[in-house]
Amino acid sequence: MTQIAILGTGLIGASIGLALKANDRLDGIDIIGYDREKKNLSRAKKIGAVDRSEKNITKAVRDASIIVLAAPVLANHRMIEEVASHLNPGVVVTDTGSTKAATIKVAHENLPEGVSFVGGHPMAGKTEVGPDNASAELFQDARWVVSAPSWASEVSVKAVLGLAEAVGAVPVIMDADEHDAYLAAVSHLPMLSAQAMFRLVRRSEAWPELGQLAAGGFKSSTRLAATDPSMAYDILTTNKEQTVHWLDRFIDELQEMRGQLQDADQEILFQEIAQVELDYSAFQIGAF
Amino acid sequence: MTQIAILGTGLIGASIGLALKANDRLDGIDIIGYDREKKNLSRAKKIGAVDRSEKNITKAVRDASIIVLAAPVLANHRMIEEVASHLNPGVVVTDTGSTKAATIKVAHENLPEGVSFVGGHPMAGKTEVGPDNASAELFQDARWVVSAPSWASEVSVKAVLGLAEAVGAVPVIMDADEHDAYLAAVSHLPMLSAQAMFRLVRRSEAWPELGQLAAGGFKSSTRLAATDPSMAYDILTTNKEQTVHWLDRFIDELQEMRGQLQDADQEILFQEIAQVELDYSAFQIGAF
Repeated sequence: MTQIAILGTGLIGASIGLALKANDRLDGIDIIGYDREKKNLSRAKKIGAVDRSEKNITKAVRDASIIVLAAPVLANHRMIEEVASHLNPGVVVTDTGSTKAATIKVAHENLPEGVSFVGGHPMAGKTEVGPDNASAELFQDARWVVSAPSWASEVSVKAVLGLAEAVGAVPVIMDADEHDAYLAAVSHLPMLSAQAMFRLVRRSEAWPELGQLAAGGFKSSTRLAATDPSMAYDILTTNKEQTVHWLDRFIDELQEMRGQLQDADQEILFQEIAQVELDYSAFQIGAF
Repeated sequence: MTQIAILGTGLIGASIGLALKANDRLDGIDIIGYDREKKNLSRAKKIGAVDRSEKNITKAVRDASIIVLAAPVLANHRMIEEVASHLNPGVVVTDTGSTKAATIKVAHENLPEGVSFVGGHPMAGKTEVGPDNASAELFQDARWVVSAPSWASEVSVKAVLGLAEAVGAVPVIMDADEHDAYLAAVSHLPMLSAQAMFRLVRRSEAWPELGQLAAGGFKSSTRLAATDPSMAYDILTTNKEQTVHWLDRFIDELQEMRGQLQDADQEILFQEIAQVELDYSAFQIGAF
């Protein structure tokens, strides 16, 4: 019997539980769920995402061989500190947080000798949170970044790759700093941009009219403003430098487009727009 | 028998035709379709969006009492110039373009005495183009901005309000300059931002990795990069000042968030993010 403890049974944690339970090729897996919020925990138990719920975090991890931290990044850090002294050698700790380098650092500073940490980040999710939005199919064919520090055991890396595959994802091994730099571009910058755009328009004096006229384009551009605030804050504070780097590049790009828009020779603007649309079509069909 | 000429039988023009044909309360309407692209025209005829197709634009408008310009903005301007001398007094000309002030100016300069122009802009659409994506339900419950210049007859304004209602939309009367200012915020800025973000990330040396990691958030933030290039170009060149104004405000907003991100006291950042998420939730459920 392999015991897996899922700490944080929100959207991601509960979906992992459901996906493991739905996997016919696994057997003898016992899933213990823990969540600081009692409601999340009881819902996760009710939908069958965990076999047992445990309100005491140290009891939840006591006999587990794999521990999955599935809360926002800073909450994962606090849980590492809480459970560290209760873990036996050989235990594998992993996470599903949106940034990787900071968590590996906290794990290194806190986990005892013989306990490995291997970071994970499923490239799936939605702005809706909580176990009620969980699904066994959430990770199907999604990429799952696995970032192993040099001090992690080979066995622990294999266990985390296996976990990603067991829930239907495609594991991709990637250095933690690389992961954070890439995600700043394709995830954290889009989130900041959505927050800034919504904030700007929402606070305009013309909001009563603007809100009425906002159609699909505005909604998709600002959708990430619905990101759970704790998750958003944790991402930004644990990946600040990379996010600021891409934010600066984005501002430069907007300034460049502004220049092209005001140029007398707008031929360049048209060529640029046409090229962007062409590249985007290729990206959409996966031929990038 | 009321004759309506739809000039431009792409997504919008063909959807107008389908919606009019699907409206049981209308009868005795004869729809003539014209499109510079033969394929669009024959497809529009085939799906029943127009009763007759006409390859000659002056013949298409000859007996029409309402003329709907449904091409990108600058193409609409060319068509106004082409048909102007063939229109009889009492004819009503309207459009569905994304900007309003420039088209009203062109109409005023070209249309003969007694021919009214009333601008229109349905707040519906998608990045997919052409009559094959048309639908009788495209405008259902969508807002349809109606911008009447002072020189338009009362009868012509009523005709255009009636047209919007006949296809299922909710007409909203709005000054053309106001429309252009508002749309710059909720439509043209999001488009520019999507184009800039996609261009930035696509041209990065790390694109092979970034493209692999780009998930739902990046896709929704950059979706408008798929806007038809002619349409995008026409919008930007006919609403340049307002778009640049909102672009500058957006850059300022991004700079402000950058500052908050780097502040020692990140409490403000968290409060801001939480407030944005709260406001966004209200916006999503329509309680803004």
